[in-house]
Amino acid sequence: MSLLIVGTMAFDALETPFGKVDRIIGGSATYAAYSASNFTKPVKQVSIIGGDFPIEEITLLEERGVEFEGVEVVPDGKSFFWSGRYHMDMNTRDSLITDLNVLAQFNPTIPESYQDCDFVMLGNLAPEVQMSVIRQLHKKPKLIIMDTMNFWMSIALDDLKKAIGMVDLLLVNDSEARELTGEYSLVKAAKKIQAMGPKYLIIKKGEHGALLFYEDKIFSAPALPLEDVFDPTGAGDTFAGGFIGYLARTNNVSFENMKAAVIMGSALASFCVEKFGPDRLKEITPVDIENRVNEFIELISFNIA
Amino acid sequence: MSLLIVGTMAFDALETPFGKVDRIIGGSATYAAYSASNFTKPVKQVSIIGGDFPIEEITLLEERGVEFEGVEVVPDGKSFFWSGRYHMDMNTRDSLITDLNVLAQFNPTIPESYQDCDFVMLGNLAPEVQMSVIRQLHKKPKLIIMDTMNFWMSIALDDLKKAIGMVDLLLVNDSEARELTGEYSLVKAAKKIQAMGPKYLIIKKGEHGALLFYEDKIFSAPALPLEDVFDPTGAGDTFAGGFIGYLARTNNVSFENMKAAVIMGSALASFCVEKFGPDRLKEITPVDIENRVNEFIELISFNIA
Repeated sequence: MSLLIVGTMAFDALETPFGKVDRIIGGSATYAAYSASNFTKPVKQVSIIGGDFPIEEITLLEERGVEFEGVEVVPDGKSFFWSGRYHMDMNTRDSLITDLNVLAQFNPTIPESYQDCDFVMLGNLAPEVQMSVIRQLHKKPKLIIMDTMNFWMSIALDDLKKAIGMVDLLLVNDSEARELTGEYSLVKAAKKIQAMGPKYLIIKKGEHGALLFYEDKIFSAPALPLEDVFDPTGAGDTFAGGFIGYLARTNNVSFENMKAAVIMGSALASFCVEKFGPDRLKEITPVDIENRVNEFIELISFNIA
Repeated sequence: MSLLIVGTMAFDALETPFGKVDRIIGGSATYAAYSASNFTKPVKQVSIIGGDFPIEEITLLEERGVEFEGVEVVPDGKSFFWSGRYHMDMNTRDSLITDLNVLAQFNPTIPESYQDCDFVMLGNLAPEVQMSVIRQLHKKPKLIIMDTMNFWMSIALDDLKKAIGMVDLLLVNDSEARELTGEYSLVKAAKKIQAMGPKYLIIKKGEHGALLFYEDKIFSAPALPLEDVFDPTGAGDTFAGGFIGYLARTNNVSFENMKAAVIMGSALASFCVEKFGPDRLKEITPVDIENRVNEFIELISFNIA
């Protein structure tokens, strides 16, 4: 089934305890597209880029089945740029520079050819932009998932809550779930978020895995214990892309199938952090993914005698 | 198979965001014995108590198959007392009072009747006391497991490393693993700890579950997501007691069986935190444990289509 992804396509400058890169490809929609395209085609991308965005990167994505009709190019504009430095624990980071550039004028138009998408991923963006995408859809998709971040809780909480009320599944990390609800217990936080609208909720816990909530059921997915997390940038978007890409391929939005999708997303995210930027995602093959999924199965399997 | 447990039997005063208790039963060996006795008998206890330790508590434990020949009673002494206050996250706490009392003179003698124990749990104690217990054993047990805490890393690191070198399995939490090795990555920390001697290592991650390491294999156990962690005191000792109690019952120290034992320990720990002190552990039945284990299985089960 076809998949619509809206989000940023950008440049990042990153500093981790393992090294530094000045200007590499990034953005939520970039990571999500690299990840989702392992499972489903076409991926109908919605984003905005400047004339500085490398044509080779677009070609690479097109070869993977990513469509660009919904990507606005501002020839004399600059692409969104973010620069950050990770702390030793790799779970916290400082934003050093955030240059919105063309993103400041992002007001996406959904092309007619995208209206057949049954699966929609709203990457982290201003909630009003996320809502505008939903409002432009002629028919209700099978599944709309939405990512966000604490920044929007600070400056656009009312809009954020409206947007959350319009989606089927929300993705947040544990600290965001706590901030959004004022509840320390993730189980209580999940109940409050589900009461805002989404039937499904995924709470991402970084090196501790992820929790999927549906009604009063919970699925706990581990993260693969890694020797080194080289660069966590984009891991959340890669997770989301793998998750919804797998759902689109299997065309099944049951809770049972979502559990498998969480494992797929986790597997893709575990590749993402092995190199800077989306580099590792460009290399992996279906066999790599299958082997990685088997590592997840091995990691949690046990038998009671 | 019979099990030897050495550790503290004590009084605790606790303050959590949910309430406060002034003087309840505590101690690593108390929690471990309540937990292990769900699986195996006898549990041969080694500890030291003052004349103030309640006889009803001893009777309760004896009814569960816990033997007291190795518990020294100092009639005119006071039992070890600890008082602590938990922070909102329940993962961190401040020690308010630590009165060693009779624990200051703890120099355990292992009774002849305990020499048949094939399974040995060394609760958190001074490493020299832990080593003294091992040295008193006439034959090598099937499995010696050892708990410790960051306090001993600060004041007795050399002794601690010697003790670690004498056991088959070390239990630490994630921050202790990092402190002991200077490695942030738990995979790297585990390799360094395994190089110190123990073939097996369990890293406890509180609300994020636990990791079991053996050779280059890892097993990841979830924690049950709970609405409220009422009182985390003793959860680690309860985990350890359930873990080794299950191994003693099944008399099987393979990595495969240890995975099941980690789930048993996790299930017992998930009960422990539901009430103050060991209260909840006194109530639970074999059916409660079976149901809880099934919740763990449900929590992590998935199928890839």
